[in-house]
Amino acid sequence: MTIDEKRIRNEVDEIVELVLKDYDQGRDIDNMDVFNQPERDEVISIVVKLLGVLFPGYYRDKGYRFYNMYSKLTLQFEDIMYYLSQQVALALAFEEKYASCSEEELEEEARKLSLEFFRKIPLIRAKINTDIQATFDGDPAAFNKEEIILSYPGLLASTVYRVAHELHLLGIPLIPRMMSEYAHSITGIDIHPGATIGEYFFMDHGTGIVVGSTSVIGEHVKIYQGVTIGALSTKGGHALHGTRRHPTIEDNVTIYSGASILGGNTVIGEGSIIGGNAFITTSIEPGSRVSISNHEMNIEGGMCETCEKADDCLIGNGTFWE
Amino acid sequence: MTIDEKRIRNEVDEIVELVLKDYDQGRDIDNMDVFNQPERDEVISIVVKLLGVLFPGYYRDKGYRFYNMYSKLTLQFEDIMYYLSQQVALALAFEEKYASCSEEELEEEARKLSLEFFRKIPLIRAKINTDIQATFDGDPAAFNKEEIILSYPGLLASTVYRVAHELHLLGIPLIPRMMSEYAHSITGIDIHPGATIGEYFFMDHGTGIVVGSTSVIGEHVKIYQGVTIGALSTKGGHALHGTRRHPTIEDNVTIYSGASILGGNTVIGEGSIIGGNAFITTSIEPGSRVSISNHEMNIEGGMCETCEKADDCLIGNGTFWE
Amino acid sequence: MTIDEKRIRNEVDEIVELVLKDYDQGRDIDNMDVFNQPERDEVISIVVKLLGVLFPGYYRDKGYRFYNMYSKLTLQFEDIMYYLSQQVALALAFEEKYASCSEEELEEEARKLSLEFFRKIPLIRAKINTDIQATFDGDPAAFNKEEIILSYPGLLASTVYRVAHELHLLGIPLIPRMMSEYAHSITGIDIHPGATIGEYFFMDHGTGIVVGSTSVIGEHVKIYQGVTIGALSTKGGHALHGTRRHPTIEDNVTIYSGASILGGNTVIGEGSIIGGNAFITTSIEPGSRVSISNHEMNIEGGMCETCEKADDCLIGNGTFWE
Repeated sequence: MTIDEKRIRNEVDEIVELVLKDYDQGRDIDNMDVFNQPERDEVISIVVKLLGVLFPGYYRDKGYRFYNMYSKLTLQFEDIMYYLSQQVALALAFEEKYASCSEEELEEEARKLSLEFFRKIPLIRAKINTDIQATFDGDPAAFNKEEIILSYPGLLASTVYRVAHELHLLGIPLIPRMMSEYAHSITGIDIHPGATIGEYFFMDHGTGIVVGSTSVIGEHVKIYQGVTIGALSTKGGHALHGTRRHPTIEDNVTIYSGASILGGNTVIGEGSIIGGNAFITTSIEPGSRVSISNHEMNIEGGMCETCEKADDCLIGNGTFWE
Repeated sequence: MTIDEKRIRNEVDEIVELVLKDYDQGRDIDNMDVFNQPERDEVISIVVKLLGVLFPGYYRDKGYRFYNMYSKLTLQFEDIMYYLSQQVALALAFEEKYASCSEEELEEEARKLSLEFFRKIPLIRAKINTDIQATFDGDPAAFNKEEIILSYPGLLASTVYRVAHELHLLGIPLIPRMMSEYAHSITGIDIHPGATIGEYFFMDHGTGIVVGSTSVIGEHVKIYQGVTIGALSTKGGHALHGTRRHPTIEDNVTIYSGASILGGNTVIGEGSIIGGNAFITTSIEPGSRVSISNHEMNIEGGMCETCEKADDCLIGNGTFWE
Repeated sequence: MTIDEKRIRNEVDEIVELVLKDYDQGRDIDNMDVFNQPERDEVISIVVKLLGVLFPGYYRDKGYRFYNMYSKLTLQFEDIMYYLSQQVALALAFEEKYASCSEEELEEEARKLSLEFFRKIPLIRAKINTDIQATFDGDPAAFNKEEIILSYPGLLASTVYRVAHELHLLGIPLIPRMMSEYAHSITGIDIHPGATIGEYFFMDHGTGIVVGSTSVIGEHVKIYQGVTIGALSTKGGHALHGTRRHPTIEDNVTIYSGASILGGNTVIGEGSIIGGNAFITTSIEPGSRVSISNHEMNIEGGMCETCEKADDCLIGNGTFWE
């Protein structure tokens, strides 16, 4: 060992002591007892397998044609069942109502819940099919429906939401949120599994869309990139868990890019159109149109066309011109 | 088999029956005939290989210096040619005009188009080089141009766009959009391959930018995160495919974060500056500055400085204060 | 070789000549001398390993319980040290002040800086722990703190920022930015390592958040998705490197989704609440509330409730209704 290596070794020893002492403070970040959490990678793998069941012609081994759909699907369900019920059992252990259950009882309950979930698959597929139709009708740039199913991030996010939502309704904690975070990370669309969303839901482009956990969204709703259906800010934390904090969006509402609609008492009435970048924290009557307005003037100065004021217009002192 | 295992087996059998019946309804989601689509993973792999050709000093095997650029580049083109023409042939089969072609004719046409595309590489590289310059001039935080090429998501997205756009101009369906969805998923920037974008294009940060399929963007245009160059909402669907639905952005326009500019008749005149979060659906004269305005008052209430009204100001009833 | 193969071979030869000539123009994109850059994949791997040190109970091999934390942590540090100092040495070579150093001197300096960085780990962990608390208090949808640590993108982005910021303070170029671009690509949150951010920082959802390199953010600040703390547009480029171009956000400020706050002279005073989609380029007094306002009218036309004007209201000519 050279002198230099010794010095480094000594420093590392010191640092290890320092960090070990830092671990020993009992804060949240120091929690060592984090065993038996559901595994993120396993949950993602289950989502991918479920896509194969939901879209049997699309997400599959293209190497062979399958001749016996019955045995193929049986294999798929047994495989998903095995992994899903493991992860669900791990998640249930975090729920108070299962606190006194043995590991075997948790596994039994997890298998029961997995089977209940499988029975929802026709319901989930029926809803996804309406989302495909709404996307095709709403996006003239779509080449065909295959393209939508194979490459539209909005459809992927709504599909994962519809799966996660059914698991959420069955009272399974953690797993649904891990699924929606997976969709969030690849699409930029963050829909909480607790949200209620009607049929024919269309999200175009999608990046930056947020739909909060107690939102209620009707049918034939169209939402563009960057739209927030969110909660008002709070420091109330967990005490508010479960209370209604997110808006109601009634049927046939269109919300343009970047609009933020907030609050548990806010209702966007049927058929309304919300312009881009609106910021809404109170209810809107059915059949309304809402827009922000712009101030515009020549870059050299002069009159604002909106205010009909001169340089002292609201944007006259804007400092963002180069 | 235990009784419990038997029960589960029976339930799975039931569920399989249920889902098989669900597959048999002839909806879009039930389509089994999805053979011979272009493969997403292959398309991504082609994009990565093309980056190696576009930036010969940057994206490459760092393990060795290459002494013979000629043979290296020949190998790269032969490799890309092989995979690209396969995927292009698969895509062409979806175009009506090739409906009567044999597989061999499609492959022949695909090779021809791939070669035509390769000839565009100097053109593509010339445009990318202007984007690098615009990024360096526009972002004082950049350490050097190497950093821009190696790690700026905006440059990656414009590079993939410039590749996808040339493939789009050659009439190749599906593949260009798959490329742009790849860039979208890693950068949050969604530029449709059909858009026309001039030289010296600079996107800063980029997350949430959307540029629609019939947009026309001039030279020296600067766009910040969250900007939409988009279409007005429609339920017209495929009937509108190809019609002009997205704006024209003339030369030397700067568009700040979050602004949405919509509609096929909307022209943002040369040299204009669009403030953040503006929502624009009509044309703007050249040399204009556009901004939204804010209302501001003390958190305890009182007078709005903008309206010069008291609590009944537009934001007086805002409910979004904690 | 068939005639067809010969023709293709000839064309590829021509294209290779064309592209080789194109490489030979001395532009930025033609730079071949890009050896010995830090490696993106290595830097990402270092970030992942650091997460294991920062959250010892969370990011770890779940396969075994570790009995000897001391030897485990020593191994972790030696491993990180080896790879981090390699990458840091490569990065230092780009700094003028190290221009005359030998490779060995760079490695020596890199090891020294790595050790200095390790000593900051308790400081970093203390700050992250406050971010966990702020997230738990601010998001009623959180199930527990484990869920926040394991799956909230906002916490991941602030963690990577706090690591990258300390490396930045040590004067290490390139690496911190590569780390923040990694976090950006998976969370949609782009925080420059140069930014200064106080304790109890909470970003909800996060997609589209941008925090520029010279921003100064106080304690207990809450930022929602799509918020920009950014610079005014410039074409000044590198000449402005290091000058103050981004705002100051004082303590206890809440900024709702989509708001953009720009400019080096802009100060958002303590305790202020900035409404969604505001666009702010001048300072705001402490204790203020700021909001944009909306114009609203029935979709059939009639009176705007805000302007108390009829169809000639600001939105009366809006063309974005279907």
